[in-house]
Amino acid sequence: MKSGDHSTIDVPESGAVAKGKAPLIATPREQKSGLKKGMGIFDFLLRLGAIIAALAAAATMGTSDQTLPFFTQFFQFQASYDDLPTFTFFVIAMALTGGYLVLSLPFSIVTIVRPHAVAPRLLLFILDIVALTLTTAAGAAAAAIVYLAHNGNPNTNWLAICQQFGDFCQKVSGAVVASFVTVVVLMLLILLSGFALKKP
Amino acid sequence: MKSGDHSTIDVPESGAVAKGKAPLIATPREQKSGLKKGMGIFDFLLRLGAIIAALAAAATMGTSDQTLPFFTQFFQFQASYDDLPTFTFFVIAMALTGGYLVLSLPFSIVTIVRPHAVAPRLLLFILDIVALTLTTAAGAAAAAIVYLAHNGNPNTNWLAICQQFGDFCQKVSGAVVASFVTVVVLMLLILLSGFALKKP
Repeated sequence: MKSGDHSTIDVPESGAVAKGKAPLIATPREQKSGLKKGMGIFDFLLRLGAIIAALAAAATMGTSDQTLPFFTQFFQFQASYDDLPTFTFFVIAMALTGGYLVLSLPFSIVTIVRPHAVAPRLLLFILDIVALTLTTAAGAAAAAIVYLAHNGNPNTNWLAICQQFGDFCQKVSGAVVASFVTVVVLMLLILLSGFALKKP
Repeated sequence: MKSGDHSTIDVPESGAVAKGKAPLIATPREQKSGLKKGMGIFDFLLRLGAIIAALAAAATMGTSDQTLPFFTQFFQFQASYDDLPTFTFFVIAMALTGGYLVLSLPFSIVTIVRPHAVAPRLLLFILDIVALTLTTAAGAAAAAIVYLAHNGNPNTNWLAICQQFGDFCQKVSGAVVASFVTVVVLMLLILLSGFALKKP
Protein backbone atom coordinates (compact mmCIF):
# COMPACT_ATOMS: atom_id res chain seq x y z
CA MET A 1 0.00 0.00 0.00
CA LYS A 2 1.28 3.40 -0.82
CA SER A 3 1.41 5.38 2.32
CA GLY A 4 0.48 8.69 0.74
CA ASP A 5 3.64 10.65 0.26
CA HIS A 6 2.09 13.73 -1.20
CA SER A 7 5.23 15.14 -2.64
CA THR A 8 5.56 12.38 -5.22
CA ILE A 9 4.20 12.91 -8.67
CA ASP A 10 1.26 10.65 -9.44
CA VAL A 11 2.06 8.61 -12.48
CA PRO A 12 -1.14 7.23 -14.01
CA GLU A 13 -1.06 3.52 -13.21
CA SER A 14 -2.00 1.26 -16.04
CA GLY A 15 -2.95 -1.38 -13.51
CA ALA A 16 -5.94 0.69 -12.52
CA VAL A 17 -7.58 -0.04 -15.84
CA ALA A 18 -8.50 -3.63 -15.13
CA LYS A 19 -7.72 -5.53 -11.99
CA GLY A 20 -5.54 -8.56 -12.45
CA LYS A 21 -4.19 -8.11 -15.94
CA ALA A 22 -0.95 -6.56 -14.84
CA PRO A 23 -0.19 -8.06 -11.44
CA LEU A 24 3.11 -6.26 -11.15
CA ILE A 25 1.47 -2.83 -11.00
CA ALA A 26 -1.93 -3.83 -9.64
CA THR A 27 -0.61 -5.19 -6.37
CA PRO A 28 -0.75 -2.06 -4.20
CA ARG A 29 -4.25 -1.33 -5.40
CA GLU A 30 -5.39 -4.84 -4.62
CA GLN A 31 -3.89 -4.67 -1.16
CA LYS A 32 -5.86 -1.49 -0.55
CA SER A 33 -8.89 -3.30 -1.89
CA GLY A 34 -8.40 -6.05 0.64
CA LEU A 35 -8.14 -3.56 3.51
CA LYS A 36 -11.30 -1.78 2.36
CA LYS A 37 -13.09 -5.09 2.00
CA GLY A 38 -12.09 -5.98 5.56
CA MET A 39 -13.41 -2.64 6.75
CA GLY A 40 -16.67 -3.33 4.91
CA ILE A 41 -17.05 -6.71 6.60
CA PHE A 42 -16.32 -5.19 10.01
CA ASP A 43 -18.88 -2.47 9.23
CA PHE A 44 -21.46 -5.16 8.43
CA LEU A 45 -20.80 -7.04 11.68
CA LEU A 46 -20.99 -3.84 13.74
CA ARG A 47 -24.29 -3.05 12.07
CA LEU A 48 -25.66 -6.46 13.07
CA GLY A 49 -24.63 -5.76 16.66
CA ALA A 50 -26.21 -2.33 16.60
CA ILE A 51 -29.47 -3.76 15.21
CA ILE A 52 -29.67 -6.27 18.05
CA ALA A 53 -28.95 -3.60 20.68
CA ALA A 54 -31.39 -1.08 19.22
CA LEU A 55 -34.25 -3.55 18.83
CA ALA A 56 -33.57 -4.99 22.30
CA ALA A 57 -33.80 -1.47 23.75
CA ALA A 58 -37.06 -0.75 21.91
CA ALA A 59 -38.57 -4.11 22.85
CA THR A 60 -37.54 -3.94 26.51
CA MET A 61 -38.95 -0.45 26.90
CA GLY A 62 -42.05 -1.27 24.86
CA THR A 63 -42.94 -4.25 27.04
CA SER A 64 -42.17 -2.57 30.36
CA ASP A 65 -45.44 -2.69 32.19
CA GLN A 66 -46.20 -3.36 35.82
CA THR A 67 -49.47 -3.63 37.67
CA LEU A 68 -49.29 -3.65 41.43
CA PRO A 69 -51.02 -6.59 43.14
CA PHE A 70 -53.33 -4.37 45.15
CA PHE A 71 -55.99 -1.87 44.13
CA THR A 72 -58.64 0.35 45.59
CA GLN A 73 -62.19 0.56 44.43
CA PHE A 74 -61.49 3.40 42.03
CA PHE A 75 -57.92 2.99 41.10
CA GLN A 76 -55.48 0.35 40.02
CA PHE A 77 -51.80 1.08 40.36
CA GLN A 78 -50.09 0.54 37.08
CA ALA A 79 -46.94 1.81 35.41
CA SER A 80 -46.26 1.56 31.71
CA TYR A 81 -43.82 3.18 29.32
CA ASP A 82 -46.54 5.34 27.78
CA ASP A 83 -47.18 7.07 31.08
CA LEU A 84 -44.08 9.14 30.38
CA PRO A 85 -43.73 10.92 27.01
CA THR A 86 -39.95 10.56 27.17
CA PHE A 87 -40.22 6.79 27.22
CA THR A 88 -42.64 6.86 24.28
CA PHE A 89 -40.08 8.95 22.37
CA PHE A 90 -37.45 6.41 23.36
CA VAL A 91 -39.43 3.50 21.91
CA ILE A 92 -40.09 5.39 18.65
CA ALA A 93 -36.49 6.57 18.29
CA MET A 94 -34.96 3.15 18.98
CA ALA A 95 -37.39 1.47 16.59
CA LEU A 96 -36.48 4.05 13.93
CA THR A 97 -32.77 3.45 14.49
CA GLY A 98 -33.26 -0.30 14.35
CA GLY A 99 -35.27 0.00 11.15
CA TYR A 100 -32.71 2.28 9.55
CA LEU A 101 -29.89 -0.10 10.48
CA VAL A 102 -31.71 -3.04 8.91
CA LEU A 103 -32.27 -1.02 5.72
CA SER A 104 -28.59 -0.01 5.71
CA LEU A 105 -27.39 -3.64 5.54
CA PRO A 106 -27.69 -3.89 1.72
CA PHE A 107 -25.59 -0.73 1.33
CA SER A 108 -23.03 -2.20 3.69
CA ILE A 109 -22.91 -5.33 1.49
CA VAL A 110 -22.35 -3.10 -1.55
CA THR A 111 -19.26 -1.63 0.14
CA ILE A 112 -17.95 -5.18 0.66
CA VAL A 113 -18.57 -6.23 -2.93
CA ARG A 114 -17.29 -2.98 -4.43
CA PRO A 115 -14.67 -1.68 -2.00
CA HIS A 116 -13.90 1.42 -4.08
CA ALA A 117 -17.46 2.73 -4.41
CA VAL A 118 -17.63 6.07 -2.61
CA ALA A 119 -21.35 6.87 -2.94
CA PRO A 120 -22.79 4.14 -0.64
CA ARG A 121 -20.12 4.86 1.98
CA LEU A 122 -20.96 8.57 1.95
CA LEU A 123 -24.68 7.82 2.23
CA LEU A 124 -24.12 5.51 5.19
CA PHE A 125 -21.79 8.06 6.77
CA ILE A 126 -24.36 10.87 6.63
CA LEU A 127 -27.27 8.73 7.81
CA ASP A 128 -25.18 7.16 10.58
CA ILE A 129 -24.51 10.60 12.03
CA VAL A 130 -28.25 11.31 12.09
CA ALA A 131 -28.91 7.90 13.69
CA LEU A 132 -26.21 8.52 16.30
CA THR A 133 -27.75 11.85 17.29
CA LEU A 134 -31.26 10.37 17.47
CA THR A 135 -30.14 7.39 19.56
CA THR A 136 -28.06 9.51 21.92
CA ALA A 137 -30.93 11.93 22.44
CA ALA A 138 -33.38 9.12 23.21
CA GLY A 139 -30.97 7.33 25.54
CA ALA A 140 -29.96 10.45 27.45
CA ALA A 141 -33.52 11.72 27.86
CA ALA A 142 -34.68 8.33 29.11
CA ALA A 143 -31.67 8.16 31.45
CA ALA A 144 -32.59 11.52 32.96
CA ILE A 145 -36.12 10.31 33.68
CA VAL A 146 -34.92 6.92 34.98
CA TYR A 147 -32.58 8.70 37.37
CA LEU A 148 -35.52 10.76 38.58
CA ALA A 149 -37.65 7.64 38.98
CA HIS A 150 -34.92 5.99 41.05
CA ASN A 151 -33.87 8.93 43.20
CA GLY A 152 -36.62 11.51 42.97
CA ASN A 153 -35.82 15.14 43.58
CA PRO A 154 -36.55 16.76 46.92
CA ASN A 155 -36.14 20.31 45.58
CA THR A 156 -39.01 20.00 43.18
CA ASN A 157 -41.05 17.52 45.25
CA TRP A 158 -40.78 14.82 42.62
CA LEU A 159 -40.87 11.55 44.53
CA ALA A 160 -39.08 8.39 43.48
CA ILE A 161 -41.50 5.83 42.07
CA CYS A 162 -39.10 2.88 41.98
CA GLN A 163 -39.98 1.79 45.50
CA GLN A 164 -43.43 0.90 44.23
CA PHE A 165 -42.63 -0.05 40.67
CA GLY A 166 -39.38 -1.96 41.06
CA ASP A 167 -39.77 -4.32 38.10
CA PHE A 168 -40.80 -1.48 35.83
CA CYS A 169 -37.73 0.53 36.80
CA GLN A 170 -35.46 -2.44 36.26
CA LYS A 171 -36.74 -3.05 32.74
CA VAL A 172 -36.53 0.62 31.85
CA SER A 173 -32.95 0.84 33.13
CA GLY A 174 -32.06 -2.18 31.02
CA ALA A 175 -33.48 -0.49 27.94
CA VAL A 176 -31.39 2.62 28.63
CA VAL A 177 -28.23 0.52 28.91
CA ALA A 178 -29.04 -1.18 25.60
CA SER A 179 -29.48 2.23 23.97
CA PHE A 180 -26.04 3.31 25.21
CA VAL A 181 -24.54 0.15 23.71
CA THR A 182 -26.15 1.20 20.41
CA VAL A 183 -24.61 4.65 20.77
CA VAL A 184 -21.11 3.22 21.23
CA VAL A 185 -21.48 0.88 18.23
CA LEU A 186 -22.76 3.75 16.07
CA MET A 187 -19.76 5.89 17.08
CA LEU A 188 -17.46 3.04 15.98
CA LEU A 189 -19.38 2.76 12.70
CA ILE A 190 -18.92 6.48 11.96
CA LEU A 191 -15.22 6.29 12.82
CA LEU A 192 -14.87 3.31 10.49
CA SER A 193 -16.66 5.20 7.70
CA GLY A 194 -14.28 8.11 8.19
CA PHE A 195 -11.24 5.84 7.89
CA ALA A 196 -12.74 4.05 4.87
CA LEU A 197 -13.44 7.37 3.14
CA LYS A 198 -9.97 8.65 3.94
CA LYS A 199 -7.66 8.85 0.98
CA PRO A 200 -4.76 6.38 1.22
CA MET B 1 -8.92 30.59 -5.65
CA LYS B 2 -9.59 28.68 -8.84
CA SER B 3 -12.91 26.88 -8.70
CA GLY B 4 -11.87 23.42 -9.82
CA ASP B 5 -13.91 21.96 -12.65
CA HIS B 6 -12.42 18.49 -12.58
CA SER B 7 -13.80 17.30 -15.90
CA THR B 8 -11.85 19.80 -17.99
CA ILE B 9 -8.41 19.04 -19.24
CA ASP B 10 -5.94 20.98 -17.19
CA VAL B 11 -4.02 23.36 -19.36
CA PRO B 12 -0.91 24.42 -17.51
CA GLU B 13 -1.74 27.88 -16.27
CA SER B 14 1.10 30.28 -16.01
CA GLY B 15 -0.38 31.62 -12.79
CA ALA B 16 0.53 28.40 -11.04
CA VAL B 17 4.19 28.76 -11.87
CA ALA B 18 4.90 30.99 -8.89
CA LYS B 19 4.42 28.16 -6.43
CA GLY B 20 5.84 25.15 -8.22
CA LYS B 21 8.74 24.20 -10.37
CA ALA B 22 6.72 21.86 -12.55
CA PRO B 23 3.47 23.70 -13.36
CA LEU B 24 2.34 21.08 -15.84
CA ILE B 25 1.82 18.46 -13.17
CA ALA B 26 1.14 20.69 -10.19
CA THR B 27 -2.06 22.26 -11.47
CA PRO B 28 -4.78 19.68 -10.61
CA ARG B 29 -3.19 19.19 -7.24
CA GLU B 30 -3.37 22.91 -6.55
CA GLN B 31 -7.02 23.03 -7.53
CA LYS B 32 -7.74 20.31 -4.98
CA SER B 33 -5.65 22.29 -2.53
CA GLY B 34 -7.90 25.30 -3.01
CA LEU B 35 -11.05 23.27 -2.37
CA LYS B 36 -9.54 21.76 0.78
CA LYS B 37 -8.44 25.19 1.96
CA GLY B 38 -11.99 26.47 1.48
CA MET B 39 -13.30 23.53 3.51
CA GLY B 40 -10.77 24.35 6.23
CA ILE B 41 -11.93 27.97 6.40
CA PHE B 42 -15.58 26.89 6.57
CA ASP B 43 -14.63 24.42 9.31
CA PHE B 44 -13.01 27.26 11.27
CA LEU B 45 -16.07 29.51 10.95
CA LEU B 46 -18.42 26.69 11.99
CA ARG B 47 -16.22 26.07 15.01
CA LEU B 48 -16.51 29.73 16.03
CA GLY B 49 -20.30 29.45 15.80
CA ALA B 50 -20.32 26.26 17.83
CA ILE B 51 -18.15 27.87 20.52
CA ILE B 52 -20.57 30.77 20.88
CA ALA B 53 -23.59 28.45 21.07
CA ALA B 54 -21.97 26.05 23.55
CA LEU B 55 -20.72 28.76 25.89
CA ALA B 56 -24.03 30.61 25.67
CA ALA B 57 -25.82 27.39 26.68
CA ALA B 58 -23.45 26.80 29.61
CA ALA B 59 -23.65 30.43 30.77
CA THR B 60 -27.43 30.67 30.48
CA MET B 61 -27.93 27.46 32.42
CA GLY B 62 -25.22 28.35 34.93
CA THR B 63 -26.79 31.70 35.78
CA SER B 64 -30.38 30.44 35.93
CA ASP B 65 -31.46 31.22 39.42
CA GLN B 66 -34.74 32.49 40.76
CA THR B 67 -35.84 33.40 44.26
CA LEU B 68 -39.52 33.93 44.81
CA PRO B 69 -40.48 37.28 46.41
CA PHE B 70 -42.18 35.63 49.38
CA PHE B 71 -40.94 33.35 52.10
CA THR B 72 -42.05 31.70 55.29
CA GLN B 73 -40.20 31.72 58.56
CA PHE B 74 -38.33 28.50 57.79
CA PHE B 75 -38.14 28.37 54.08
CA GLN B 76 -37.31 30.54 51.14
CA PHE B 77 -38.50 29.44 47.73
CA GLN B 78 -35.62 29.31 45.35
CA ALA B 79 -34.80 27.43 42.17
CA SER B 80 -31.33 27.06 40.75
CA TYR B 81 -29.71 24.83 38.17
CA ASP B 82 -27.91 22.80 40.84
CA ASP B 83 -31.20 21.66 42.34
CA LEU B 84 -31.40 19.16 39.50
CA PRO B 85 -28.43 16.88 38.78
CA THR B 86 -29.32 16.80 35.08
CA PHE B 87 -28.86 20.55 34.80
CA THR B 88 -25.51 20.33 36.60
CA PHE B 89 -24.44 17.70 34.08
CA PHE B 90 -25.64 20.03 31.33
CA VAL B 91 -23.46 22.90 32.54
CA ILE B 92 -20.40 20.66 32.85
CA ALA B 93 -20.95 19.01 29.47
CA MET B 94 -21.52 22.28 27.61
CA ALA B 95 -18.48 23.89 29.28
CA LEU B 96 -16.40 20.85 28.27
CA THR B 97 -17.64 21.07 24.68
CA GLY B 98 -16.95 24.80 24.57
CA GLY B 99 -13.45 24.28 25.98
CA TYR B 100 -12.70 21.49 23.53
CA LEU B 101 -13.90 23.61 20.60
CA VAL B 102 -11.64 26.50 21.65
CA LEU B 103 -8.67 24.12 21.90
CA SER B 104 -9.54 22.67 18.48
CA LEU B 105 -9.18 26.06 16.74
CA PRO B 106 -5.38 25.78 16.29
CA PHE B 107 -5.81 22.37 14.65
CA SER B 108 -8.44 23.85 12.37
CA ILE B 109 -5.96 26.57 11.39
CA VAL B 110 -3.38 23.87 10.62
CA THR B 111 -5.82 22.30 8.14
CA ILE B 112 -6.16 25.70 6.42
CA VAL B 113 -2.41 26.28 6.21
CA ARG B 114 -1.60 22.70 5.18
CA PRO B 115 -4.66 21.45 3.29
CA HIS B 116 -3.17 18.01 2.62
CA ALA B 117 -2.27 17.13 6.21
CA VAL B 118 -4.41 14.14 7.21
CA ALA B 119 -3.43 13.77 10.88
CA PRO B 120 -5.06 16.95 12.30
CA ARG B 121 -8.23 16.31 10.30
CA LEU B 122 -8.48 12.77 11.65
CA LEU B 123 -7.90 14.00 15.21
CA LEU B 124 -10.61 16.64 14.87
CA PHE B 125 -12.93 14.08 13.26
CA ILE B 126 -12.62 11.62 16.15
CA LEU B 127 -12.92 14.25 18.89
CA ASP B 128 -15.84 15.95 17.12
CA ILE B 129 -17.80 12.69 17.26
CA VAL B 130 -17.19 12.47 21.01
CA ALA B 131 -18.19 16.12 21.45
CA LEU B 132 -21.35 15.57 19.40
CA THR B 133 -22.39 12.65 21.58
CA LEU B 134 -21.68 14.54 24.80
CA THR B 135 -23.58 17.64 23.66
CA THR B 136 -26.55 15.64 22.39
CA ALA B 137 -26.76 13.69 25.64
CA ALA B 138 -26.66 16.86 27.75
CA GLY B 139 -29.20 18.67 25.58
CA ALA B 140 -31.64 15.75 25.42
CA ALA B 141 -31.47 14.99 29.13
CA ALA B 142 -32.05 18.65 30.00
CA ALA B 143 -34.90 18.80 27.48
CA ALA B 144 -36.58 15.82 29.16
CA ILE B 145 -36.40 17.55 32.55
CA VAL B 146 -37.51 20.92 31.14
CA TYR B 147 -40.53 19.23 29.58
CA LEU B 148 -41.33 17.74 32.97
CA ALA B 149 -40.91 21.12 34.66
CA HIS B 150 -43.28 22.71 32.16
CA ASN B 151 -45.96 20.02 31.99
CA GLY B 152 -45.44 17.78 34.99
CA ASN B 153 -46.65 14.21 34.85
CA PRO B 154 -49.94 13.19 36.43
CA ASN B 155 -49.13 9.45 36.30
CA THR B 156 -46.15 9.76 38.58
CA ASN B 157 -47.46 12.72 40.60
CA TRP B 158 -44.64 14.96 39.45
CA LEU B 159 -46.09 18.47 39.41
CA ALA B 160 -45.08 21.21 37.01
CA ILE B 161 -42.87 23.80 38.71
CA CYS B 162 -42.94 26.40 35.95
CA GLN B 163 -46.06 28.09 37.31
CA GLN B 164 -44.00 29.19 40.29
CA PHE B 165 -40.59 29.51 38.70
CA GLY B 166 -41.43 31.06 35.34
CA ASP B 167 -38.19 32.98 34.79
CA PHE B 168 -36.11 29.99 35.79
CA CYS B 169 -37.92 27.78 33.28
CA GLN B 170 -37.51 30.34 30.52
CA LYS B 171 -33.75 30.59 31.02
CA VAL B 172 -33.37 26.83 31.18
CA SER B 173 -35.39 26.38 27.99
CA GLY B 174 -33.16 28.93 26.27
CA ALA B 175 -30.08 26.98 27.32
CA VAL B 176 -31.55 23.78 25.87
CA VAL B 177 -32.23 25.51 22.55
CA ALA B 178 -28.63 26.79 22.46
CA SER B 179 -27.37 23.27 23.08
CA PHE B 180 -29.42 21.97 20.13
CA VAL B 181 -27.88 24.67 17.93
CA THR B 182 -24.46 23.36 19.02
CA VAL B 183 -25.55 19.83 18.10
CA VAL B 184 -26.54 20.88 14.57
CA VAL B 185 -23.27 22.77 14.03
CA LEU B 186 -21.25 19.79 15.29
CA MET B 187 -23.12 17.49 12.89
CA LEU B 188 -22.17 19.83 10.03
CA LEU B 189 -18.54 19.85 11.24
CA ILE B 190 -18.38 16.04 11.21
CA LEU B 191 -19.95 15.91 7.75
CA LEU B 192 -17.38 18.45 6.53
CA SER B 193 -14.54 16.39 8.04
CA GLY B 194 -15.85 13.32 6.25
CA PHE B 195 -15.89 15.14 2.91
CA ALA B 196 -12.44 16.62 3.53
CA LEU B 197 -11.02 13.19 4.38
CA LYS B 198 -12.66 11.62 1.35
CA LYS B 199 -10.33 10.70 -1.41
CA PRO B 200 -10.86 12.84 -4.50
